[in-house]
Amino acid sequence: MKIEVLYDYPRLEEKLIIERLKASNCEVILTNINNKPLPLGERVADVSLVRSVSMYKALYAAAVRESGGGIAVNSSYTISICGDKILTLSKIKNAGLNVPKSIIAMDVESAQAAYRALKKPFVDKPPIGSWGRLVSLVTDTVSWRSLLEHRQMLPSQQLKIHIMQDYIEVNNRDIRVIVVGGEVLGAMYRVSVGDEWRTNIALGGKPVQRRLDPVIEEVTLKAAESVKGDFISVDILEDSMGTLYVNEVNGVPEFKGFMEATGIDVASELVKFLIEVSKR
Amino acid sequence: MKIEVLYDYPRLEEKLIIERLKASNCEVILTNINNKPLPLGERVADVSLVRSVSMYKALYAAAVRESGGGIAVNSSYTISICGDKILTLSKIKNAGLNVPKSIIAMDVESAQAAYRALKKPFVDKPPIGSWGRLVSLVTDTVSWRSLLEHRQMLPSQQLKIHIMQDYIEVNNRDIRVIVVGGEVLGAMYRVSVGDEWRTNIALGGKPVQRRLDPVIEEVTLKAAESVKGDFISVDILEDSMGTLYVNEVNGVPEFKGFMEATGIDVASELVKFLIEVSKR
Amino acid sequence: MKIEVLYDYPRLEEKLIIERLKASNCEVILTNINNKPLPLGERVADVSLVRSVSMYKALYAAAVRESGGGIAVNSSYTISICGDKILTLSKIKNAGLNVPKSIIAMDVESAQAAYRALKKPFVDKPPIGSWGRLVSLVTDTVSWRSLLEHRQMLPSQQLKIHIMQDYIEVNNRDIRVIVVGGEVLGAMYRVSVGDEWRTNIALGGKPVQRRLDPVIEEVTLKAAESVKGDFISVDILEDSMGTLYVNEVNGVPEFKGFMEATGIDVASELVKFLIEVSKR
Amino acid sequence: MKIEVLYDYPRLEEKLIIERLKASNCEVILTNINNKPLPLGERVADVSLVRSVSMYKALYAAAVRESGGGIAVNSSYTISICGDKILTLSKIKNAGLNVPKSIIAMDVESAQAAYRALKKPFVDKPPIGSWGRLVSLVTDTVSWRSLLEHRQMLPSQQLKIHIMQDYIEVNNRDIRVIVVGGEVLGAMYRVSVGDEWRTNIALGGKPVQRRLDPVIEEVTLKAAESVKGDFISVDILEDSMGTLYVNEVNGVPEFKGFMEATGIDVASELVKFLIEVSKR
Repeated sequence: MKIEVLYDYPRLEEKLIIERLKASNCEVILTNINNKPLPLGERVADVSLVRSVSMYKALYAAAVRESGGGIAVNSSYTISICGDKILTLSKIKNAGLNVPKSIIAMDVESAQAAYRALKKPFVDKPPIGSWGRLVSLVTDTVSWRSLLEHRQMLPSQQLKIHIMQDYIEVNNRDIRVIVVGGEVLGAMYRVSVGDEWRTNIALGGKPVQRRLDPVIEEVTLKAAESVKGDFISVDILEDSMGTLYVNEVNGVPEFKGFMEATGIDVASELVKFLIEVSKR
Repeated sequence: MKIEVLYDYPRLEEKLIIERLKASNCEVILTNINNKPLPLGERVADVSLVRSVSMYKALYAAAVRESGGGIAVNSSYTISICGDKILTLSKIKNAGLNVPKSIIAMDVESAQAAYRALKKPFVDKPPIGSWGRLVSLVTDTVSWRSLLEHRQMLPSQQLKIHIMQDYIEVNNRDIRVIVVGGEVLGAMYRVSVGDEWRTNIALGGKPVQRRLDPVIEEVTLKAAESVKGDFISVDILEDSMGTLYVNEVNGVPEFKGFMEATGIDVASELVKFLIEVSKR
Repeated sequence: MKIEVLYDYPRLEEKLIIERLKASNCEVILTNINNKPLPLGERVADVSLVRSVSMYKALYAAAVRESGGGIAVNSSYTISICGDKILTLSKIKNAGLNVPKSIIAMDVESAQAAYRALKKPFVDKPPIGSWGRLVSLVTDTVSWRSLLEHRQMLPSQQLKIHIMQDYIEVNNRDIRVIVVGGEVLGAMYRVSVGDEWRTNIALGGKPVQRRLDPVIEEVTLKAAESVKGDFISVDILEDSMGTLYVNEVNGVPEFKGFMEATGIDVASELVKFLIEVSKR
Repeated sequence: MKIEVLYDYPRLEEKLIIERLKASNCEVILTNINNKPLPLGERVADVSLVRSVSMYKALYAAAVRESGGGIAVNSSYTISICGDKILTLSKIKNAGLNVPKSIIAMDVESAQAAYRALKKPFVDKPPIGSWGRLVSLVTDTVSWRSLLEHRQMLPSQQLKIHIMQDYIEVNNRDIRVIVVGGEVLGAMYRVSVGDEWRTNIALGGKPVQRRLDPVIEEVTLKAAESVKGDFISVDILEDSMGTLYVNEVNGVPEFKGFMEATGIDVASELVKFLIEVSKR
């Protein structure tokens, strides 16, 4: 069994995964995608785990490995869906799950029309981005115009596009659940801190263990299935009435905070899954 | 039957399609995606034809319509694959078709390594882009370094990534074939002009009718299938030995030049297909 | 006498100036800087009026003409100062005039420190930009963080830099004064409209005539002198106590609204000045 | 005597300067401009040495210190001229010195016209940039078109503008001279290495001592005067006939290689000058 790890900047997560892989009896191949050119059609392993920090590099690394007949975890399909918040919302909604009421505005004129239609405050974010970056809570016209002007000046076509969403009151926390190979590993809260409304760990959010109940488990597995995700994390918003909304899905999940909060050895579970896949 | 056309800047192609749709007995819904906000989950038609000039806007328009249970032509899946030259190559290669020998380099160091490995001249292009833009023929170290530095300064992550390909000698022309609903409509050459090596119509390439033979037909249909394309154009390179390489697939094809060269009424064929789909 | 007009996109202003020039007995040379390469050291006229919409093109056009010993109006010096709000503030402040209390923050950490030090609301803007674009009123931490993140993503080094200023209560209007060749032509109010706090004409601000008093005249002339401006407009904020603050100076001023509000034929006055300069 | 050093990323140069300053009996103030907000009008020292790696941060730091009546070395004027290759060429040319024959093209159309007029190979570079970056040698139409397309996609207005220059045959080396306070410290060659035609140290160029002769001294001092430079380096091209062309002037010069090649203690000479200025 040959298992490859494709990475760019190894974080704690990648180090743990590599450690666990080496402790198993797989042959481990480490590929730094910034140094090594990837020939289309090349096959170097049975399974290739994609772990780059850059979403696009992850997507392309998976696609190259698939072009050679290899299996990528996650697949390029899953990474392309989860790496884009509009594509994710489309799949989740189509699967019959709740998502926050969302309007997609392609340009300034449609964004202005959506602004007039939405209850304030609302959430505005571009389809691409990690760690909560550019996810904005819009409360008034003055800050909305400033946001709209700034967004228009961003150099990427995608960053000019607006996802405008109902703001769900979540009591300063959301729920993060991790799935490996069709099984839910566990759940945690991410609790926002101070005057930061976003719960992202990168923005200071605190990971806190949460009991896993059957409803959350069901929602998470449906979400995973809708994006064909092998190893993903799902972010769920729970409003004051207990209604659950799937908000985002991560196709190359970080899990340091999750490990700390839950004590679950995510890297080991992932390695078990990779070995299982490589035997198929 | 309700058929929607989603567009941003209507070209001749969009005008013809709309004319043909209006001449049929469908209800035609015109949606300017720059003006109109698109609510996730909204269903306005049986089939939605996506015709925006901007690839990302096309992708998101398709995804929104699918989120409401509608059918998009092309699907968001096809647009996401065809809108990205690495994802396209991966699917085509995986389907067993010839593609130019290609190396994907994610960063400067791997691009330099690939440069040393490749025969000159070679083709370098980023995964995203239309009309031949940024598609470069690299002949020597001096122009390679300049290209590498410029690419690094581009503001988008994707435009920093390199597809480095064998240059296929094609006698100043490539073959473009259009497919609608699993049927090949016809083929043309695009002939490059003057000292421009690229064949793109936007760069002055001349459209010239070409006989459709069974081999081209088979290659094209396999390519269409590999990206699940309903309405696409396929670009094929034919080397001096007659070997065919699939180079790119377009998910929102322009067809003005194709109509002129072949006399085929692409808009009518497309409208027939849309009506057929809306009846399913 | 040869007088050149360098332009890119001719607006009403450029058309009027050219008309007035042609009605005089000068030889008029029209140079579209987007079409015509400008050789360093070339001398085509006695005086070159720089009227491009793009600030950097205006700056470089002036510098090229000066390199050939010609006189540019405005000079490259004036355009470089007035085209940059930090350089303008520095000159104005150094000349002993009032400016809004301003802090320059080069990076996120210093911007956060300045944020803590400033009274809210305050004004945040980058050094470069016209028509009020990206000029933001910051009222609270949530919108500040969003602004800070967006600014960091802008592709230009300059747009990442923050001018953070006391917000001067101006009763929805500021004063714009135009100077030609050391003489004040007149003044107007720009009155902001609706829920837009900015007074820029491009943002809907209404031009309204204002009496020219000696204090405004003195402030304006000192401001013009501090940037060595031949033909400029000066924006002045007047607080509730009647204190005047020089806010910005424009080195390629638009004057359509000014003409409408004051009835002053700015183009004629400018042409008189250009002829006078060309006789020196 | 209070002398301030404004810096962002301290290199060897900054460390040496600070060491020498501390060894003198000045009071030394160190200001990290990324951390510390700079209030307009603040006066913290008699003289402020500006040493940030970022040209714009250097420019604005100088301007802020001048707004408080302080002296900046270099002045904001000098930094703004030397930080921009078009402004530098304009001043040098206007001072009657030789510069390579240069054409400024503001847009694609004028760049194409200049391309047709120029002898190949020629040098193409944008007005802004350090370390030789984007400085390209254009030899043929294929690489020219690629360069033109790439340049158009760069997000900054300035980087889209072309300085197109005669290529001066310099036998793989240019001459760098350093000036402090109107005195020439010494000279070196920068020798390009391998197949890299550019001589920049950052691109592998080797520093080699060069005798200082009166002609070079005179050219350098005239160049320094034309940009009012206190502490600058001047790059001079010498063609096969011995003609000297001033090519670029650096307003925040690096001098590590210069020290190695010449043995001159640039930091000490600079500190002497700063002390002298602070006594004025």
